[in-house]
Amino acid sequence: MTDADALDAADPLAGFRDRFAPTEPGLIYLDGNSLGRLPLATAERLARAVTEEWGGGLIRSWESWIDLPSQVGDAIAAGVVEADPGEILVADSTTVNLYKLAAAALDARPDRRVIVTDDDNFPTDLYVLQGLAAARGLEIRTVRTGIDDGPDPATIAEALDGGVALVSLSHVAYRSGAIADMAAVTAAAHHAGALTLWDLSHSAGSVPVPLRSSGADLAVGCTYKDLNAGPGGPAYLYVRRELQESLRQPIWGWFGQSGQFAMEGTYTPVRGIGSFAAGTPPILGLYAAQEGVRLIAEAGIDRIRAKGMALTSYLIGLADEHLAPLGFRLASPRPADRRGAHVTLQHPAAWQVCRALIERAKVLPDFRTPDRVRLGLAPLTTSFAEVREAVDRLATLVAAGDHLGYPSAPGRVT
Amino acid sequence: MTDADALDAADPLAGFRDRFAPTEPGLIYLDGNSLGRLPLATAERLARAVTEEWGGGLIRSWESWIDLPSQVGDAIAAGVVEADPGEILVADSTTVNLYKLAAAALDARPDRRVIVTDDDNFPTDLYVLQGLAAARGLEIRTVRTGIDDGPDPATIAEALDGGVALVSLSHVAYRSGAIADMAAVTAAAHHAGALTLWDLSHSAGSVPVPLRSSGADLAVGCTYKDLNAGPGGPAYLYVRRELQESLRQPIWGWFGQSGQFAMEGTYTPVRGIGSFAAGTPPILGLYAAQEGVRLIAEAGIDRIRAKGMALTSYLIGLADEHLAPLGFRLASPRPADRRGAHVTLQHPAAWQVCRALIERAKVLPDFRTPDRVRLGLAPLTTSFAEVREAVDRLATLVAAGDHLGYPSAPGRVT
Repeated sequence: MTDADALDAADPLAGFRDRFAPTEPGLIYLDGNSLGRLPLATAERLARAVTEEWGGGLIRSWESWIDLPSQVGDAIAAGVVEADPGEILVADSTTVNLYKLAAAALDARPDRRVIVTDDDNFPTDLYVLQGLAAARGLEIRTVRTGIDDGPDPATIAEALDGGVALVSLSHVAYRSGAIADMAAVTAAAHHAGALTLWDLSHSAGSVPVPLRSSGADLAVGCTYKDLNAGPGGPAYLYVRRELQESLRQPIWGWFGQSGQFAMEGTYTPVRGIGSFAAGTPPILGLYAAQEGVRLIAEAGIDRIRAKGMALTSYLIGLADEHLAPLGFRLASPRPADRRGAHVTLQHPAAWQVCRALIERAKVLPDFRTPDRVRLGLAPLTTSFAEVREAVDRLATLVAAGDHLGYPSAPGRVT
Repeated sequence: MTDADALDAADPLAGFRDRFAPTEPGLIYLDGNSLGRLPLATAERLARAVTEEWGGGLIRSWESWIDLPSQVGDAIAAGVVEADPGEILVADSTTVNLYKLAAAALDARPDRRVIVTDDDNFPTDLYVLQGLAAARGLEIRTVRTGIDDGPDPATIAEALDGGVALVSLSHVAYRSGAIADMAAVTAAAHHAGALTLWDLSHSAGSVPVPLRSSGADLAVGCTYKDLNAGPGGPAYLYVRRELQESLRQPIWGWFGQSGQFAMEGTYTPVRGIGSFAAGTPPILGLYAAQEGVRLIAEAGIDRIRAKGMALTSYLIGLADEHLAPLGFRLASPRPADRRGAHVTLQHPAAWQVCRALIERAKVLPDFRTPDRVRLGLAPLTTSFAEVREAVDRLATLVAAGDHLGYPSAPGRVT
């Protein structure tokens, strides 16, 4: 028995691998943090929703569909992140939710003219903030972060003053996997009178998300990564209960309207998290999110976190031994408690290495700019044996120079 | 052979009924303009997308998914509405698209402070405009429209002056089915220097939509009604090509970014319709829209329009004969060329009548405030025999007073 086999044998989550559609023989999928794999239950649930509920129930099915955005939101609050019922709603895309919540926060601090973020935040987060800043004539104060590390709370705190309306950061950095200190940053932001907006896309479903205990104000996240809800699955938003009455988001739509089907001509939003809804919710995506969230909750975020740390630690140990001599450098935090469930390796030929891995070695990693190979280790679907085998194939491929024939080229979707 | 049977026998679109999942025996579905029925091809396409493309292809499938928003948009332009390739994008919800385009239009007329709409526009349209007006301190000038008729172009024209930035109307009124004169309203708006924004949710797929020939500037629409894309299917947006470079929408996201996967930190939108995208598009919804659009295009919008007029004319004739004596009054335009593919009847007990129809007569209509029974006659799925049978059941039920036991109550989803 290899060390990997022993680790798999002792893994309490190993059985969850059978809850997902199998991949093609020999494929090692290390991109579950871009697009999570397909749960078997989801394929069945979607087929039933299409055939029975849409095809058979037709318009009558809205009686149960209408509550899905808050039901799935409550399920995320109960089983994925630390939040209370009525604090999370599934709606729109991460980008649109970032826009809604950032705009609401800025409206709540009308005398403050500064947004703080960091230069390694996910691009769409930066773009949304840039759009709002441009429209309102605000300043974006961008804290510099080493791209191997997350934002340092002390550096963030230094950027704060009485002019800051909003601090917007990713909880887990998309490139390095570094975990930001949500409690420390939120405390500093609140000390300065600012609100916080967290992007949980790379953390929810892979690490604990201390929204309640940190006092975080606002958050958004996607469901197609570690929540396994499928390509373009709907996003969610979190608004701390105490803020729900005072914040108003800018996209007023009929799904946020009180007495929606009275079809009144004047917008009067519902009370609570529902006021952050806008248009008609995507029912198929909501069911997929519901199934994905159910799996995370069943596995338990603490066991998921423990396995995520074990997988990434195992990978880093193998990388130190077999990949460092081939020019790879760890570009994620070395302490296990400072990183999420992916590990990023820097290599000058990272793009070529990624192409060769995909096309010759049947390992699916993710290329990240400028020169990173990102390896996502989804705790529900990745085995220790896969980690070992992936490192073996990667080392063999690079040692043989099999990547050298590939051209340098731009990336693809994550 | 009854007259209905003769009409069905002569219907060139009759065969399309077999392209949809069958309903339960005896059910007459007159709500396809709220939620269109399930095309058989869509159930197959979704199952394949889930199992093969998501489950099997995983992240690699983004290579083909990434072009779906513009591909399906181009298919709408080619087969559903009058538009050119590169003028339509499938994205977000109707509400979010209304917000994006209305905001872009208002930004393009910064010195003008007035939005013109009509009081019978769909509620979410009114709410979006109210939200933008509140945020910017603008005036909404609401033209009064009889709720049995669409907006009168002359009345709209009277409301226009040099202070108007935007005229935003529905092409087909959701309640009455009245068709607005897109060409006349657009000409009047342009004469005043304003832009036009049309909601096509109740027109695209049931009547011709003269975007190009009318010179319309902007439009949005949903896909879950006459385009049969399923509950919460993604919406689309139209921006006349000449305006695409000068208009900028407010929600800056990574799917609108030039060189998206270079992950650059500064937003630089792509040129063209893609700049009106925001976040990650919903892939399952896009496939469902693609299949629905394909059916419309195959049937041909002219044949769809001819059948829609024939169905509604047939219904109105029967209503005059059998329902008027029972207290029903036509609340849609009487000339066939002035209404879309639904007919609305006013009755003082409309809510009770709708409940009784659904629960006792297996006819699914739509209640519309304040006292309307709306009957949607989807040209691809409704037969003349169903229209006749539905009127028979409705007349029998009301004549017997079977609706009188139902309480008055608020409505449900459309």
